[in-house]
Amino acid sequence: MTFDIIQKSYIAGFFVYVLINLALVYSSVYIITQFAPAAAGSGIPEIKGYLNGVDTHGILLFRTLIGKIFGSIGSVGGGLALGKEGPLVHTGACIASLLGQGHLAVAIFAAKVAKIVVGVAIFAAKIAKNWQSELANHTDCRFIASVPLKLCLLFLGGSTKYHLNSRWFQVFKSDRDRRDLVTCGCAAGVAAAFRAPVGGVLFALEEVTSWWRSQLMWRVFFTSAVVAVVVRAAMGWCKSGKCGHFGSGGFIIWDISDGQEDYSFAELFPMAIIGVIGGLLGALFNQLTLYITTWRRNHLHKKGNRVKIIEACLVSILTSSISFGLPLLKKCSPCPDSDPASGIECPRPPGMYGNYVNFFCSKDKEYNDLATIFFNTQDDAIRNLFSAKTINEYSSQSLLTFLVMFYALAVVTFGTAVPAGQFVPGIMIGSTYGRLVGMFVVKYYRKLNIEEGTYALLGAASFLGGSMRMTVSLCVIMVEISNNLKFLPLIMLVLLISKAVGDAFNEGIYEEQAQLRGIPLLESRPKYEMRNMTAKEACGSGRVVSFPRVVKVSDVLSILRSNKHNGFPVIDHTRSGEPLVIGLVLRSHLLVILQSKVDFQHSPLPSDSRGGGRSIRHDSSEFAKPVSSKGIRIDDIHLSSDDLEMYIDLAPFLNPSPYIVPEDMSLTKVYNLFRQLGLRHLFVVPRPSRVLGLITRKDLLIEDKENVNTLELQSTSVRIG
Amino acid sequence: MTFDIIQKSYIAGFFVYVLINLALVYSSVYIITQFAPAAAGSGIPEIKGYLNGVDTHGILLFRTLIGKIFGSIGSVGGGLALGKEGPLVHTGACIASLLGQGHLAVAIFAAKVAKIVVGVAIFAAKIAKNWQSELANHTDCRFIASVPLKLCLLFLGGSTKYHLNSRWFQVFKSDRDRRDLVTCGCAAGVAAAFRAPVGGVLFALEEVTSWWRSQLMWRVFFTSAVVAVVVRAAMGWCKSGKCGHFGSGGFIIWDISDGQEDYSFAELFPMAIIGVIGGLLGALFNQLTLYITTWRRNHLHKKGNRVKIIEACLVSILTSSISFGLPLLKKCSPCPDSDPASGIECPRPPGMYGNYVNFFCSKDKEYNDLATIFFNTQDDAIRNLFSAKTINEYSSQSLLTFLVMFYALAVVTFGTAVPAGQFVPGIMIGSTYGRLVGMFVVKYYRKLNIEEGTYALLGAASFLGGSMRMTVSLCVIMVEISNNLKFLPLIMLVLLISKAVGDAFNEGIYEEQAQLRGIPLLESRPKYEMRNMTAKEACGSGRVVSFPRVVKVSDVLSILRSNKHNGFPVIDHTRSGEPLVIGLVLRSHLLVILQSKVDFQHSPLPSDSRGGGRSIRHDSSEFAKPVSSKGIRIDDIHLSSDDLEMYIDLAPFLNPSPYIVPEDMSLTKVYNLFRQLGLRHLFVVPRPSRVLGLITRKDLLIEDKENVNTLELQSTSVRIG
Repeated sequence: MTFDIIQKSYIAGFFVYVLINLALVYSSVYIITQFAPAAAGSGIPEIKGYLNGVDTHGILLFRTLIGKIFGSIGSVGGGLALGKEGPLVHTGACIASLLGQGHLAVAIFAAKVAKIVVGVAIFAAKIAKNWQSELANHTDCRFIASVPLKLCLLFLGGSTKYHLNSRWFQVFKSDRDRRDLVTCGCAAGVAAAFRAPVGGVLFALEEVTSWWRSQLMWRVFFTSAVVAVVVRAAMGWCKSGKCGHFGSGGFIIWDISDGQEDYSFAELFPMAIIGVIGGLLGALFNQLTLYITTWRRNHLHKKGNRVKIIEACLVSILTSSISFGLPLLKKCSPCPDSDPASGIECPRPPGMYGNYVNFFCSKDKEYNDLATIFFNTQDDAIRNLFSAKTINEYSSQSLLTFLVMFYALAVVTFGTAVPAGQFVPGIMIGSTYGRLVGMFVVKYYRKLNIEEGTYALLGAASFLGGSMRMTVSLCVIMVEISNNLKFLPLIMLVLLISKAVGDAFNEGIYEEQAQLRGIPLLESRPKYEMRNMTAKEACGSGRVVSFPRVVKVSDVLSILRSNKHNGFPVIDHTRSGEPLVIGLVLRSHLLVILQSKVDFQHSPLPSDSRGGGRSIRHDSSEFAKPVSSKGIRIDDIHLSSDDLEMYIDLAPFLNPSPYIVPEDMSLTKVYNLFRQLGLRHLFVVPRPSRVLGLITRKDLLIEDKENVNTLELQSTSVRIG
Repeated sequence: MTFDIIQKSYIAGFFVYVLINLALVYSSVYIITQFAPAAAGSGIPEIKGYLNGVDTHGILLFRTLIGKIFGSIGSVGGGLALGKEGPLVHTGACIASLLGQGHLAVAIFAAKVAKIVVGVAIFAAKIAKNWQSELANHTDCRFIASVPLKLCLLFLGGSTKYHLNSRWFQVFKSDRDRRDLVTCGCAAGVAAAFRAPVGGVLFALEEVTSWWRSQLMWRVFFTSAVVAVVVRAAMGWCKSGKCGHFGSGGFIIWDISDGQEDYSFAELFPMAIIGVIGGLLGALFNQLTLYITTWRRNHLHKKGNRVKIIEACLVSILTSSISFGLPLLKKCSPCPDSDPASGIECPRPPGMYGNYVNFFCSKDKEYNDLATIFFNTQDDAIRNLFSAKTINEYSSQSLLTFLVMFYALAVVTFGTAVPAGQFVPGIMIGSTYGRLVGMFVVKYYRKLNIEEGTYALLGAASFLGGSMRMTVSLCVIMVEISNNLKFLPLIMLVLLISKAVGDAFNEGIYEEQAQLRGIPLLESRPKYEMRNMTAKEACGSGRVVSFPRVVKVSDVLSILRSNKHNGFPVIDHTRSGEPLVIGLVLRSHLLVILQSKVDFQHSPLPSDSRGGGRSIRHDSSEFAKPVSSKGIRIDDIHLSSDDLEMYIDLAPFLNPSPYIVPEDMSLTKVYNLFRQLGLRHLFVVPRPSRVLGLITRKDLLIEDKENVNTLELQSTSVRIG
């Protein structure tokens, strides 16, 4: 009966579908452009930059968080060719950062907002469900229910962590701990998005962080484990259908454990081909998005927010039309002989999700294979592509059409001003050509134990490998979402090939986007030409501006105005009059001192309260850098002419021993020092004239000096060379 | 019929069993003590030390490799309470190191030896199989077949890597690349031992290496993927039973994917208890083994190899007696009503492996639950403990007996002079108490969908977590060997708890053993008391011995004899007569120069051929440090009195810019510098008097200077502070 109504109202359905999608996308792009411009895109390049030591303005603010949440509800719900995973990683990082700032009130408020959103969303999902059944269940509204619920889980995960670690909270002011916390947030995002906790840990460690310590691994693991337990618990609670579609699907999103049991040697060749295709298409994707983003920024987005909104709406209309219209043009296929053991019905009953969608078909026992993947939620489309026991469900023509159209849509959508992840579109693209290859294998090898779904999984892995260039984390994520460990060697093989092929053309998508956005990431390897450069050459021609220990306020002001350096050496004189570098003072600290004025003194002589002075007059939090804001600017400081005549003793505010390198050290070595220790400033000094001592490994093993008698040092030797 | 024979010959069977085990253990301990003393133990602490920068004598030699292979065949085959995983990691590292030295001939020879061993072993396994059927399949001889085959696969994995990377080979001389290669070897070891490639990657990164780079991750991933594909291929080839028991079991060793489907909230409490027990027992295990190893070294092993051999033989007899004798004392239980759907027979048919072993039972339909786990191979015992659909197979009394006895045996066995891993015994212990807890849960909760096998898996994870203190890698390994991703959140939870509990008592087993063996590992965190120390204080009181640029041979000799330093500063004078530190020269390089004599010159003036000199007269390989050997000793050098009067210009042999730190830098900072960069020597110099330049992040981004116009630098700011 419902069927008849749909049959009659296809045109009306089309308009409703387009309009609702348009409204959702419009709300998303409106929020982003008016309210939180930093929330556009996936956010992973920016987070990566933040953890590498570069602040992009506004990426970790509260408004960005809110914009990201609501923006991604709109953009994902609006059916665009993008995913929710990147935004979730960014969301996790934002929440972690807000928690780290001690904005408990903010976090609780956000959690409450998220809960209300969940309530509204569930209500909306119920309405949508009715509407869906009219439209053959084809809108993405169920995402509305799942996205914020996951976000809420993230909050819970985050706040659990928070309560358990009140001691941590004491040290959150330090830059390193804040970075650790943001890393944990990223892991939580992936863990919640894919229900892949170990994958989350590895993603955070492999792709996002720049510095890695075993301690960090433990923290990230802790966060991820809490998220896993909370997600699992919430899913148990939601099983009864209380939370829309959230509970469905189980802990493994796209379960293919009942698929192909084994594989033969001969199959390795087509699998290697999938790897090559993945590398090529992935590299092409990176290149195309790079061009289109550059073009967009230089021509379109300069014209203001209105253009951004129109652009996103056009893309939405295009996407809706194609995903609704193309299946209409496709002729339906007759259902295959049904196998009651597999439990797959054809056509699928209305109101369910699964394979064999009847869409605009004239007969009862027919299905539309293009509609099954195209006019569907992305989650379901991937499940259908991965599905086993559905050999010959798709015609190669449909898959090819879908591949070309979706690839083009993903490229066009990338870079519009909405929150957008690349994981799910990547899986869609990859699994489509994977299934295509699988179809040829089934045809050519003529064996019954080959499943096209397996090839779809490998295809997905290969495209992500070719585009994002991750290895271990991607491998674990693919296994965690598909629950088939037997294919682990194959996934590894495919990833090896696709990453190697992709690396031959360009860099990974996150690195390219980071470069495009002007985030100067320091790579882990120094450039080759650095071998022949010395530290002195790298400093550039600018003269070093240094401060004396006690400095006049007016001098400070004029020096700060005259250049843009962020750190200055401080030089004192010994009693015999020789100059001596006593440390490094930061511009930001100088600005705090200038603004507070309490450290001004009348005498040009060093004050005696060295060391103690700062702790009395300043709270250390005054010097802590605010997250993602510009801090005090020099124009904000207003000093009277009396103030200008006073002096400041810089000694209490120094970093007394910054790292130093001799002038003719090879730049490769300097780079390693800088990168490995996460430095911001490094002094280049003349070659020393004396060596006061040599530190070796044994000098650093303080603790063991007592029980040195138990050491068998004769049998071991500290390596030299 | 066979059954009757066994029934009659239990006493004869006992003696044969004890004697064969004794012979195997004797062969193992004889090889170790006479031929390769460095191959005793698991080898992981030593490898960890090597990668941290400490050479233990002989751990990567060819004889150690051979000793490890044959020794572990003996010790594992001899039925001792130890595993083969640690030795396999060590073996992998040895092979990698030998390959890295370019000992291709050696590697090929080793591969051939391994192949012959495989041949012999398969033959032996066939004989053993006949013998086994007489003894109700209870010896561990099948290990003889599986161990060397895996080793062979390792070889294949290693050499495949080798061929693909001939360009690598050029740079293998560098210390860092050799370390990378050894890390890859460790990953290959775990990947082959557990058929867990991703677990291998993570084990190498989390537990073994000290320095981590994304490049290293790629290399390790590559190795592990190759191993996975090769292992999988070999298993396909072996499926027909050509290689003994190697092919059986599939890619997942202890598959429990058909076990418990889901879990309820109420189960989390007993699972948390398993975590606590694991933490306590693991910490106790570490402490006991620490005591017993210390005692052994101070009292027993001083008396020479004979004592070591007797000790190992006694342990073997004890183990055999207990594992054969205790089940004899246990009364048999009647078989449960068989369920044809589960496919489990009771008692199991002779010649098969599985649950419900009939051992010394008077009736046909009875089984001996203690024999099922105790008088069995460890692999099978674990499979039985993990098994689903076998509720109430074991009595709590049997499990408790086994737990106490095996724990005691594992503690006693640890530290005997045979190759020994702790993974498999740990899994045995853990799964026993896990199953015990599971039994109580089954009894108390009275639900039918709870499986004791699930608790056994969690128990295994908790004991390993409590003893080895790994997180992510252990988690992945547990999932990879058991193939049940649904339990991932539970495994993470249990690992969190057990590691936290264990950390409250002592350090991980590898760290404790490393400390005991006098391997000075530099931990990733500096000690707290370092905060208040300066670099100058850490240098110790010893005066710095430095060389002038051109030095008399006799002076070199006397300086080298007079102290044990490994590095010396070289000090030259500028034209104006001021001293200037021009670099660091290593003791090992000086010894090479002294031995070769080609660089001696008559004039005390600097030679002009600076830079070019070394490349002509020396091959760089002469200066490369030989792996794990003492190198040239000073007593090996014989110089004539003419030679002693000559001079050496040290300039070509210098490291011209070693890292330097100012004298009053906090030792915490020095430690980080040392640890992060993996340094061996560090110069402590006076505070500089001038700053020639400041290097910041922007100075290091060489490449991007050209397309600086596309950068949006106004929106990003390099973080300061």
